[in-house]
Amino acid sequence: MNKNDAIAFVEPHLTKQRFEHTLRVASTAVSLAKKYNVSPEKAELASIFHDYCKYRAMDEMKRIIAASNLPKDLLLYHHELWHGPVASIKIEEEFGITDHEVKSAIYYHTTGKANMSKLELIVFIADYIEPGRSFPGLDKVREMAQNDLIKAGWMVSRNTIKYLMEKENRIYPDTFHAYNDLTRLITGGNHIE
Amino acid sequence: MNKNDAIAFVEPHLTKQRFEHTLRVASTAVSLAKKYNVSPEKAELASIFHDYCKYRAMDEMKRIIAASNLPKDLLLYHHELWHGPVASIKIEEEFGITDHEVKSAIYYHTTGKANMSKLELIVFIADYIEPGRSFPGLDKVREMAQNDLIKAGWMVSRNTIKYLMEKENRIYPDTFHAYNDLTRLITGGNHIE
Repeated sequence: MNKNDAIAFVEPHLTKQRFEHTLRVASTAVSLAKKYNVSPEKAELASIFHDYCKYRAMDEMKRIIAASNLPKDLLLYHHELWHGPVASIKIEEEFGITDHEVKSAIYYHTTGKANMSKLELIVFIADYIEPGRSFPGLDKVREMAQNDLIKAGWMVSRNTIKYLMEKENRIYPDTFHAYNDLTRLITGGNHIE
Repeated sequence: MNKNDAIAFVEPHLTKQRFEHTLRVASTAVSLAKKYNVSPEKAELASIFHDYCKYRAMDEMKRIIAASNLPKDLLLYHHELWHGPVASIKIEEEFGITDHEVKSAIYYHTTGKANMSKLELIVFIADYIEPGRSFPGLDKVREMAQNDLIKAGWMVSRNTIKYLMEKENRIYPDTFHAYNDLTRLITGGNHIE
């Protein structure tokens, strides 16, 4: 699917703000992809569709999670975690996108997971650092993203857990596994997760 | 086992500082136990033995973990996590302490876990707030421990995760499960962990 078609499919489903965020994530991800030798086309496609289901009705997302092979424990956590996994299903159903790498980068863009691919890390990080975002400590993550993709991903997962704990939210297991796995990688420990 | 015997067994295995910490944990735990209708005798016994294996040789602890029914993934995490589970085994072997509640409070005093009993929470919290401790934010936890045992336990688990992330340490799954489970309880969500 070419970029313009993808954008045309996504735009009607998003608010103007969210659509602009999406375009910024895509250009951030493309630039990281080029830097780290990942397919810029895949990074762009995954980014354009990453929030495709952000505004789906909760009931529709619930039905999709219940009727698909998505893990049912998603339903026990905050609905903010649903739109990535649901989008990974819908883009195949509606647009025939079957690329596992692209689908997985969309699936895990909110939580991360253990053993992330470079493409998954890029979308996870780009969503966090795109130039429209602004919060304390973000510049450090932006700088790290130019030097060390894994350390930048670690910072995103650590900051995410910190933020969730400040809000008294529970943490989805994949978020925790992402943190532990990336910690193992950055500290060079010989432990396994 | 009476208090004096327990203390006499433990003292030779600890540094002076650690022994004094142990006595302070015990008196903190007894006072919480009385407040929250938990057996003060069990709280005292568990506290006296909670750090019993703190200074065992790493090799000995490794052997005990490998040879017992303790979870082997402990060996893949920081050795600071070993002394609680190892003590829960040794106190039965050496002193015939078979009380499951006491053993479990010792086992989980470092990590916590999902579905903690009041006794487990009391030792977990007392170890953190005993009057010899001093670090930012501790007074809030001390105050909360006088009002709401679960919320205080939640604060301990949240602070522990924050501390581990600042040190770039991985987080043992039980620590994460403790946080999620206590978050569910304090926010009154109807989600399950």
